[in-house]
Amino acid sequence: MTATPHRVVIVGAGFGGLETVYRLAGAPVSVTLVDRRNHHLFQPLLYQVATAALATSEIAWPIRYLLRGRPEVTTLLATVTGVDAEKRCVTLDGGDTLPYDTLVLATGARHAYFGHDEWEPFAPGLKTLEDATTLRRRILIAFEDAERESDPQRRAALLTFVIIGAGPTGVELAGTIAELAHDTLPPDFRNIDTHKARVVLIEAGSRVLAGFPDELSAYAQRSLESLGVEVAFGQPVTDCTADGVVYGDKRLEAKTIIWAAGVRASPAAEWLGAPADRAGRVSILPDLTVPGHPDVFAIGDTVTINGPDGSPIPGIAPAAKQQGRYVANLIKARLRGETLAPFIYKHAGSLAQIGRRLAVIDFGRVKLRGGLAWWVWGVAHIYFLIGLRNRLSVAMSWLWIYTRQQRGARLITQGRAKVSNYWP
Amino acid sequence: MTATPHRVVIVGAGFGGLETVYRLAGAPVSVTLVDRRNHHLFQPLLYQVATAALATSEIAWPIRYLLRGRPEVTTLLATVTGVDAEKRCVTLDGGDTLPYDTLVLATGARHAYFGHDEWEPFAPGLKTLEDATTLRRRILIAFEDAERESDPQRRAALLTFVIIGAGPTGVELAGTIAELAHDTLPPDFRNIDTHKARVVLIEAGSRVLAGFPDELSAYAQRSLESLGVEVAFGQPVTDCTADGVVYGDKRLEAKTIIWAAGVRASPAAEWLGAPADRAGRVSILPDLTVPGHPDVFAIGDTVTINGPDGSPIPGIAPAAKQQGRYVANLIKARLRGETLAPFIYKHAGSLAQIGRRLAVIDFGRVKLRGGLAWWVWGVAHIYFLIGLRNRLSVAMSWLWIYTRQQRGARLITQGRAKVSNYWP
Repeated sequence: MTATPHRVVIVGAGFGGLETVYRLAGAPVSVTLVDRRNHHLFQPLLYQVATAALATSEIAWPIRYLLRGRPEVTTLLATVTGVDAEKRCVTLDGGDTLPYDTLVLATGARHAYFGHDEWEPFAPGLKTLEDATTLRRRILIAFEDAERESDPQRRAALLTFVIIGAGPTGVELAGTIAELAHDTLPPDFRNIDTHKARVVLIEAGSRVLAGFPDELSAYAQRSLESLGVEVAFGQPVTDCTADGVVYGDKRLEAKTIIWAAGVRASPAAEWLGAPADRAGRVSILPDLTVPGHPDVFAIGDTVTINGPDGSPIPGIAPAAKQQGRYVANLIKARLRGETLAPFIYKHAGSLAQIGRRLAVIDFGRVKLRGGLAWWVWGVAHIYFLIGLRNRLSVAMSWLWIYTRQQRGARLITQGRAKVSNYWP
Repeated sequence: MTATPHRVVIVGAGFGGLETVYRLAGAPVSVTLVDRRNHHLFQPLLYQVATAALATSEIAWPIRYLLRGRPEVTTLLATVTGVDAEKRCVTLDGGDTLPYDTLVLATGARHAYFGHDEWEPFAPGLKTLEDATTLRRRILIAFEDAERESDPQRRAALLTFVIIGAGPTGVELAGTIAELAHDTLPPDFRNIDTHKARVVLIEAGSRVLAGFPDELSAYAQRSLESLGVEVAFGQPVTDCTADGVVYGDKRLEAKTIIWAAGVRASPAAEWLGAPADRAGRVSILPDLTVPGHPDVFAIGDTVTINGPDGSPIPGIAPAAKQQGRYVANLIKARLRGETLAPFIYKHAGSLAQIGRRLAVIDFGRVKLRGGLAWWVWGVAHIYFLIGLRNRLSVAMSWLWIYTRQQRGARLITQGRAKVSNYWP
């Protein structure tokens, strides 16, 4: 008679959670992977869905398809509502409970408004596929409405796009919207000149891409400006409305505002009553467990932990994957009655794309920018996609965009209420 | 000084409206094409989006991109709310008016419930991209919920898929859902056996594909049954609820019901006070104008007109395209002071796909079925797609489905309210 296998419950099928599952292959465990979405999302390219470059299905995969060859892994589409650490189970929407021997919380983060949640309807952020199709709809409808608008002031507001926050997501969005307006769309409109669309990137700090070395920040800013992006520094946004933004002492009329300025972690810390920072991130121990809960790991964007240089590990895919791998290895070690040295983060590099043949890469000693960086960026991202089908598809989409100015996913869906209604 | 060009307003960028625009190339006219969607939709493959085989962007194109090389054509994203035939203008949402010299109404049809509109929430139909992603979400969530469900009766209802109406759309949906359940999904689930999912096709009439010859109907039925579809004839549905359907004297518990049983035309006839049949289709004259309105054409699914054999022209893409071509030619002839002989419909053939290597084609004298018909069907549909990008992409999608059981678009989006919400 065999013993019941050790039950691992993993919450969240992002980069960290999925890597944990992959690295547990062959271990004497049964795994239940819970996610409230049915798909794993390749978030680094999400801004390309928002800007009509890629289709949703090119950067998302059904989780259970990815794990079809792993009979010991059960995938559940469910929302976790809490953790009962005493009884060692998680509670799901609908009231079901799921018992665990080891729990891995890889529940991610959402965008955050620093106490101004009332801005969200006017300045949506970008974390899910729906966020991306919502932004895509807003951006494309702004051009459509401008084409119909006869009042010059309202038309100008429709053709003004504001991005708040100049981290990688903000920079990538600003550069890509500028390309969309200035390269892709001009021949398609008759009443407006989309060359004249304004793309304004507002940053409270003193430079773009603050996580990069000064010289790459400066290059990124010059690149953005060469694409026609206006960059405004040192001026925090003090109001967002349906008509525009206020920053510094300026008011800017704009019908499209995008929020790329901050994140808030999932409620994992609240579930456990664990210590957390101001953004809600769990302060975890060097073995990636939650203080007081040696059988509960937390990884990825929902945690905060310092790297070997003393600064917090960045919220990027490679960091989450390294943590997932460590957790899987530690679970396997513990099952053998062993343990592991504390987790050490190895920073491989930072990448950001700005536009066609414009990117910056910081590998530490080696810094790249311009055309070469752009090719490295493109090849790296295609490499990290899952499956040949999506690699071919994304490569084809990029080829068409840059050789034919054809963005394949310029679809306005789920839009104005009337559109999807039954007649009349 | 040149005269103001003749103003043609075309409402609807489906197969008929778009063909009219294409065939007006070079004519001394200015064209305004109005659609309430920003994309032209390849409806014949819409059921493949609903069944996770194709991505939305593979069968939809931005209308204004298709017409970027035609400076005399203006595309407007707007909803037409009426026609003022006396003042010769159409009214748009928001109250704007658009004057015309010649008007072409190609406004299509929606699905209809024959006086039972209250069934729509339980039995959605399939006409738009949103319809397709809604069906896809419902179908995929049914399997997900079944995987979590422990009650056998509720689980059986979740694994029962009912399609009402055995015309081409109903047959194609039934065959494809059966393939999804019986071929694609089995290795992905741990608690349910998706082989056991029931797909039930209910038809009020006496056979499937009533528009095809008896022998092809019989073949289609055998093919459906070989895929595991249960076919029920001669039993009209008398009720649809959240829990299932009633048909004949039977009640069937089913959580997913799809309506493929009938259509209702757009309100074009109402706008003009024109004669219409019970489905709201305008009864047009042999030159495709609306009676009493020689400068207003109506074409495609929103009209009814008999073909040379005395029976109504079917509501299929080739019929709409032939009508669009005729209207463009007649407009050009009129501008030269000439006219044309009445429109004559030429039926090229009828096609329906049932499953892998299963299709029926009726070319009149030549009738095809099985593998050869399936290849002809596939090549024809790829041929009629617009642009190399989408042809390659759809061909790749089909290759992956049939060689690797990988359906690329298995995404549940816009789903349960909580999912897309901001934390918590």
